[in-house]
Amino acid sequence: MQTLSVALDERSYPIHIGAGLLGGGLKGLIGPLQGTRIALFTNPTVEALYAEKVLDALPHFDVETFLMKDGEAHKNLSTYAEAMDFLVNRRFNRTACLIALGGGVVGDLTGFVAATYQRGIDFLQIPTTLLAQVDSSVGGKTAVNHPSGKNMIGAFHQPQSVIIDTEVLQSLPVREYAAGLAEVVKYGVIADAEFFAWIEAHVDELIALDPDALHHAVRRSCEIKAEVVAKDEREAGVRAILNYGHTFAHAIENLSGYGSWLHGEAVATGMLMAAEFSEGLKLLPQGEAGRIENLLGMLNLPVKLGTDVSATAMFEAMAIDKKAVDGKMRFVVAHKIGHAELTDEYDETVLRRVLQSFCHG
Amino acid sequence: MQTLSVALDERSYPIHIGAGLLGGGLKGLIGPLQGTRIALFTNPTVEALYAEKVLDALPHFDVETFLMKDGEAHKNLSTYAEAMDFLVNRRFNRTACLIALGGGVVGDLTGFVAATYQRGIDFLQIPTTLLAQVDSSVGGKTAVNHPSGKNMIGAFHQPQSVIIDTEVLQSLPVREYAAGLAEVVKYGVIADAEFFAWIEAHVDELIALDPDALHHAVRRSCEIKAEVVAKDEREAGVRAILNYGHTFAHAIENLSGYGSWLHGEAVATGMLMAAEFSEGLKLLPQGEAGRIENLLGMLNLPVKLGTDVSATAMFEAMAIDKKAVDGKMRFVVAHKIGHAELTDEYDETVLRRVLQSFCHG
Repeated sequence: MQTLSVALDERSYPIHIGAGLLGGGLKGLIGPLQGTRIALFTNPTVEALYAEKVLDALPHFDVETFLMKDGEAHKNLSTYAEAMDFLVNRRFNRTACLIALGGGVVGDLTGFVAATYQRGIDFLQIPTTLLAQVDSSVGGKTAVNHPSGKNMIGAFHQPQSVIIDTEVLQSLPVREYAAGLAEVVKYGVIADAEFFAWIEAHVDELIALDPDALHHAVRRSCEIKAEVVAKDEREAGVRAILNYGHTFAHAIENLSGYGSWLHGEAVATGMLMAAEFSEGLKLLPQGEAGRIENLLGMLNLPVKLGTDVSATAMFEAMAIDKKAVDGKMRFVVAHKIGHAELTDEYDETVLRRVLQSFCHG
Repeated sequence: MQTLSVALDERSYPIHIGAGLLGGGLKGLIGPLQGTRIALFTNPTVEALYAEKVLDALPHFDVETFLMKDGEAHKNLSTYAEAMDFLVNRRFNRTACLIALGGGVVGDLTGFVAATYQRGIDFLQIPTTLLAQVDSSVGGKTAVNHPSGKNMIGAFHQPQSVIIDTEVLQSLPVREYAAGLAEVVKYGVIADAEFFAWIEAHVDELIALDPDALHHAVRRSCEIKAEVVAKDEREAGVRAILNYGHTFAHAIENLSGYGSWLHGEAVATGMLMAAEFSEGLKLLPQGEAGRIENLLGMLNLPVKLGTDVSATAMFEAMAIDKKAVDGKMRFVVAHKIGHAELTDEYDETVLRRVLQSFCHG
């Protein structure tokens, strides 16, 4: 097991990474809680696989389980209100702790509930998808979706700790696993050329879920994310680079209805669009977008849009994204593999050309 | 005009207090905003009285108005969701600023929307009731109610500034004005014996809305609140004394349905219950509760419960209050007029006796 730290003064917390942590060792990792009551937030799929392990590790706590429906479509204010009813009706108070056991949907919703129940209570992240392990469980971004925009309603609220059992990835559907690899690739593109090259060299091991390769991929991703978050918790500046490809990705998800694309899949295509945009702006050297496309393809990730999406619709969906400032969209662009920056200075015709090249109308 | 400061490092902000601030001077007080778009949150009653003044002071901004229904019953997740629809559908982004123009209901809801729209945007408080001016607009507590408990869902989110025009109190219904005086009395009880004596000596001026008396009452109340909040923003300790009388008051409001008692009225009766509880615990000298009762009575505030409330129902409603920790209720008790403390060590039979003496079943 390895333990990283997200350094945020009094809100600092550990990320524990290891194979098999959901077994007997879990109890020691959870640490002292303020009270004796826990609400375990999960969905039926994850509950069937892992809830018993978690409950077995917490014999001295009074644990009640809140089951939410599986899928991005349920990360909304309606499920949020149900969760609040659950906590109020069972008289959970400020010393209670929530545990998010599941993927990004469970983690984001649980975190937002924890951020706002009685003005904020503690919560732990136990991410069970690769995407949640390397991205959404770390950094304190919590949210639910609005019908017109992803993560439009939310808060910054850091967990007490993140406990990552890489062994659970063995049970993850292949498609979801691949989607998580998109975010792993992202860390290489935005911050670490050597890591990007390591991924290129270990595609087979990663696809085969080789334990050592998995551990390295998760650890290095969490390290990069923790460093960036420690520098800029509330995304006033550098943290925005973590959104590389995401303005495109959110538009893809939004236009296709949440759920038909997995978030990581949309990020894969979005990253390629961002790379081609960066090339078009003469920032990223010619050929690097092709290298990214090649790696995403080897990892079985989508790099094309469906025939139903138009460039105009993409453009409009992107304009409502949270990162737009007074009508001007902002983009994270790659200057090379291993370095990305946020910009709002770009030639819009290049953007429209890139959208056109990916769309069929 | 006087300007106080709530000292919270990078979240510090000014409280401007004066008669007539909603006139031409408002623009200078609002200060620089991040963007050019403002959403003015108010209700139809306040809109009719003051929205034009505010809009006239903001000619260079693109202002749209969100009208919420008047009354505590509408400070709920349903209005919150409507407000989110309003902002998303009009494509407000992270640089937008909300203005809460109204009483505590408008301020609490607007603040919670600002705390959670796109993970937090700026907002200003322009409180138009005495209660909001001396209490809810200062300190960053934001919330909506749950059917089973007041302010159960919310966040800490500090405004950019608070602009208090004491002249608007002239248009406030007498009953609402009196309700605000309850919180003014509270500051005397918990923190300043001299201020309590000043209120006793200026009952007539206060009831007549004498401008100088009003200014002093509002300024001293805000000063005390700002000092306490600066010491303990998130209510880990001393801030709890601001809740003096509130555990009782929330139970009263909860049992009677939000709206039949004004919050300040419930606080008045709750403060007297807390004073008698403090006397029963031999903390507050005999006779001081009578002095508080006398002052509240002179200010036309209720000091009795209705015949429909039972001691058992009160006890149970109090047990779900946010301040309860693992089933043990905590109370702010007065040690003398001018000093209060939080405690969870008390004789429950004394509590039940006090409830019994106020209830009729």
